[in-house]
Amino acid sequence: MKHDRFCVPHDKKIKLKDYDTSFTGEFNNKHEATAALKSDVRRLAELQDVLYAHDTYGVLIIFQAMDAAGKDGTIKHVMSGINPQGCQVFSFKKPSAEELDHDYLWRCMKSVPERGRIGIFNRSYYEEVLVTRVHPELLDYQKLPPKSRRGIWKRRFREINNYERYLHDNGIIVLKFFLNVSKKEQKKRFLDRINRAEKNWKFSASDVKERGHWDDYMDAYEDMFNNTSTRYAPWHVIPADKKWFARGAVAQIIIEALEKLDLHYPKVNDEHLERLADAKVQLEAEDE
Amino acid sequence: MKHDRFCVPHDKKIKLKDYDTSFTGEFNNKHEATAALKSDVRRLAELQDVLYAHDTYGVLIIFQAMDAAGKDGTIKHVMSGINPQGCQVFSFKKPSAEELDHDYLWRCMKSVPERGRIGIFNRSYYEEVLVTRVHPELLDYQKLPPKSRRGIWKRRFREINNYERYLHDNGIIVLKFFLNVSKKEQKKRFLDRINRAEKNWKFSASDVKERGHWDDYMDAYEDMFNNTSTRYAPWHVIPADKKWFARGAVAQIIIEALEKLDLHYPKVNDEHLERLADAKVQLEAEDE
Repeated sequence: MKHDRFCVPHDKKIKLKDYDTSFTGEFNNKHEATAALKSDVRRLAELQDVLYAHDTYGVLIIFQAMDAAGKDGTIKHVMSGINPQGCQVFSFKKPSAEELDHDYLWRCMKSVPERGRIGIFNRSYYEEVLVTRVHPELLDYQKLPPKSRRGIWKRRFREINNYERYLHDNGIIVLKFFLNVSKKEQKKRFLDRINRAEKNWKFSASDVKERGHWDDYMDAYEDMFNNTSTRYAPWHVIPADKKWFARGAVAQIIIEALEKLDLHYPKVNDEHLERLADAKVQLEAEDE
Repeated sequence: MKHDRFCVPHDKKIKLKDYDTSFTGEFNNKHEATAALKSDVRRLAELQDVLYAHDTYGVLIIFQAMDAAGKDGTIKHVMSGINPQGCQVFSFKKPSAEELDHDYLWRCMKSVPERGRIGIFNRSYYEEVLVTRVHPELLDYQKLPPKSRRGIWKRRFREINNYERYLHDNGIIVLKFFLNVSKKEQKKRFLDRINRAEKNWKFSASDVKERGHWDDYMDAYEDMFNNTSTRYAPWHVIPADKKWFARGAVAQIIIEALEKLDLHYPKVNDEHLERLADAKVQLEAEDE
């Protein structure tokens, strides 16, 4: 399946409402999608192994979404086959006092993956143009210099674009996913979290309050996509009403991005091969 | 004394050879300069205290120079009066394996000062357009993606400018100092390090080898100044043949920058004052 349709173009504006949340592509049901995901996860593990050995590129995968859209589940199901030595997940929640004392990109910058690794941001600096935009009073906690609020969202878009371009040019591939869930589907999942005791921990009353700002969030997301989906760090809007579809689409987009990198295991030179031969002789000559 | 003369203009090109290394301004001797520095260090400590309480701006001070130009001594003498809780020095030496595994700004980005603090970089990401430019074979260790070497210095200038502009706009003031020592004075200091046993540890034979690339370094510095001295993060070329002059000039430029920030102790509101009054009553009513 081609996934270009989910990629937000870098050169024209989109409307978020034109993106179907319940699209399921070629899959007729969960069963088919799950079988495909299984083989994708295996392929991803292979690619991650050579990414690690090749040691030139890092991959930064950013997830943003409304509550209950399936970020945790997607990370779990797409990444579970991967060697944890080559993969790190960072969840960015309400900033700590130490984090607020720094510039807003700092906590993410220091967690950017090394070469050879896949780094996953469960939420990210994009919260700074989403929740902070919907609740601008949060800026009061950021200790910003006076006069720096004028044009702050445009400036943040530019700052983020500059940083992502820098990452790309220095070998850190940036892939961004928005799990696009409908308001109706969110309601269903919230009720499920309330009704099932083992899911209660995933729900807090404030989630319903945030849901009240749904339209503001959609506006903030749309403006964010239109300003920060770039050639070097594209946004993907993934239909997420069906979790099984979202997971499969994310896995395939990551696979496609890795396959484009022309990864290979390091080539061993003649000198090294000679040393390997010597070592073999020496080992075989040992007493036992 | 006005220090604008040391500031590299952001809007026109300079020639490094036009900058006098032995300038001493209004000072006739070390004694006079040292007395002035003493009072400047006290003023700096006061300003740092209110910077810390005000908790809106951080200050990043970057030192770059040829060997034996006096970076360590300047940091020691200018910063020794400051509360260490509000000041952190990071020395960036030959990058470690972990650091090489990351993008080249990473190790500096994660050490950027918090609001309220003065952070000092003894060398910095600017090494990446200095030593790495003079010895481009060092790029081999940086695991860069293929084709990323074309135009790499211009690109790094742009990346650094973008980052420093971001810091400035988010309340982190960036001040950059080049301690400008002459080749002749460096020779004198090297011989001193060789001849005096207690200074031997500061000298390594490779220092003389680097000295052999003097002209290449000057070219790299000059191009760096002309590309990265900006309105928001200016370079200062400080005459450094006389250590006592360099120290005084650095101290005064930092003081001027802090004084421009309109720092003040946080204002306490009426409610807080009432609570203080209540607490006082309560304390005084205690048995002893």
